[in-house]
Amino acid sequence: MRIDIATLFPELCETWLSASIVGRAREAGVFELKCHQIRDYAFDKHKRVDDTPYSERQGMLMMAEPIWQCYKAVAGDRKPYVVFMSPKGKTLNQQKCLELSKKSDLFILCGHYEGVDQRVLDKIVDEEISLGDFVLTGGELPAVVLVDGIARMLDGTLGKSVSHEDESHFDGLLEYPQYTRPEVWQGMAVPEVLLSGHRDNILKWRRYKKLEETYKKRPELLETAELDLVDRAYLSEISAICDEHPKFFD
Amino acid sequence: MRIDIATLFPELCETWLSASIVGRAREAGVFELKCHQIRDYAFDKHKRVDDTPYSERQGMLMMAEPIWQCYKAVAGDRKPYVVFMSPKGKTLNQQKCLELSKKSDLFILCGHYEGVDQRVLDKIVDEEISLGDFVLTGGELPAVVLVDGIARMLDGTLGKSVSHEDESHFDGLLEYPQYTRPEVWQGMAVPEVLLSGHRDNILKWRRYKKLEETYKKRPELLETAELDLVDRAYLSEISAICDEHPKFFD
Repeated sequence: MRIDIATLFPELCETWLSASIVGRAREAGVFELKCHQIRDYAFDKHKRVDDTPYSERQGMLMMAEPIWQCYKAVAGDRKPYVVFMSPKGKTLNQQKCLELSKKSDLFILCGHYEGVDQRVLDKIVDEEISLGDFVLTGGELPAVVLVDGIARMLDGTLGKSVSHEDESHFDGLLEYPQYTRPEVWQGMAVPEVLLSGHRDNILKWRRYKKLEETYKKRPELLETAELDLVDRAYLSEISAICDEHPKFFD
Repeated sequence: MRIDIATLFPELCETWLSASIVGRAREAGVFELKCHQIRDYAFDKHKRVDDTPYSERQGMLMMAEPIWQCYKAVAGDRKPYVVFMSPKGKTLNQQKCLELSKKSDLFILCGHYEGVDQRVLDKIVDEEISLGDFVLTGGELPAVVLVDGIARMLDGTLGKSVSHEDESHFDGLLEYPQYTRPEVWQGMAVPEVLLSGHRDNILKWRRYKKLEETYKKRPELLETAELDLVDRAYLSEISAICDEHPKFFD
């Protein structure tokens, strides 16, 4: 997979995407990533990339031409799938990360300042993606989040022993609580079942806790999660306990 | 406002939060931000912060004690509002950014690896916040996103001339499209009204376009947005056009 990011802050994206698990995956060749400075494609000697908007609104907008030139230079004869990070886009979720992880060629455009001239968006963008219903300073953070979310889905990013399938949201449920050493910390003990070594019971406990966490914190996720008969039995137990001791589960 | 971030990657958060508008606001004293290395509070000579989970799951978990020590050292006698970035939390939105921007003292905990021992979360965390329904490598990116979203709400971060009230999601609607020079780019002209200099018409156009963008891209937002009679008249016009030419508005 190849990912190109076009931005006014390539060094920021670069720093982040060189660190930790994603950086190691990149180094190991799991995917190829390049960050491009849009300013390099400005057409005047001052390397200007922004201008005032026509709408009488204050602030600056990114001009169409430098973005178009950057896109043409990076894409060449290829036809990458172009994503624009924007609060107006579809909200990012795990499914979208998975979907985009299957593209072989992704071009991510980051806006900055007060926005981008609509015409270049109309010309090159295949999909607008939003991180959520809030506004940020630029598209850089959303782009890095998107790449992190995608990279985790690629074979080879996570170790063989650790799977993204085990994590919150992969199966539409929240993750079970986790515990490490010591067995007792500040008077709080690790749940006994986890010390038992009884694999079947541990797996049952995990599933139960996933359902419980989801029921308590994000019940709406249960509407779309895949649940079998055992899950439903667990859930009726969980809901009975929550209804009986609502304060305990607030 | 004071914000503390506790993380295993303070330098990454630091780099990002020193750049652009947020970095300038910080420098100007709009808010105070410190990033803390949890590893500095590890209790053994190897500065170990993680250990294997009890759940028989592979991967590493962050231990309770170094996080607790870091929290105690940073908070001292204060009682900051503690946020843990987690896919299990409430989904971040503009309202939540606004709400948190009113706290005077915020402590943001970033998990990493496969997670954090549940017991320290039970002990110190006031609220779990999720960036959205997807999983990332660590809590650092979400923390930086949160700080960016909050910082924009603080008086003095954005210039006087630029207001966050003008942006997508502030009033629950998406932003209108924007245009800058040249008037015609690749055969595409800036909408005539924007060149007219007629302020009233421009304001009307903006409002109409906000409603149109929202209707086309995120119609569910209209259910909770504040709409007056003129808005409703615009919307019935917009929906009539969309219904007549559904393909045009796909």
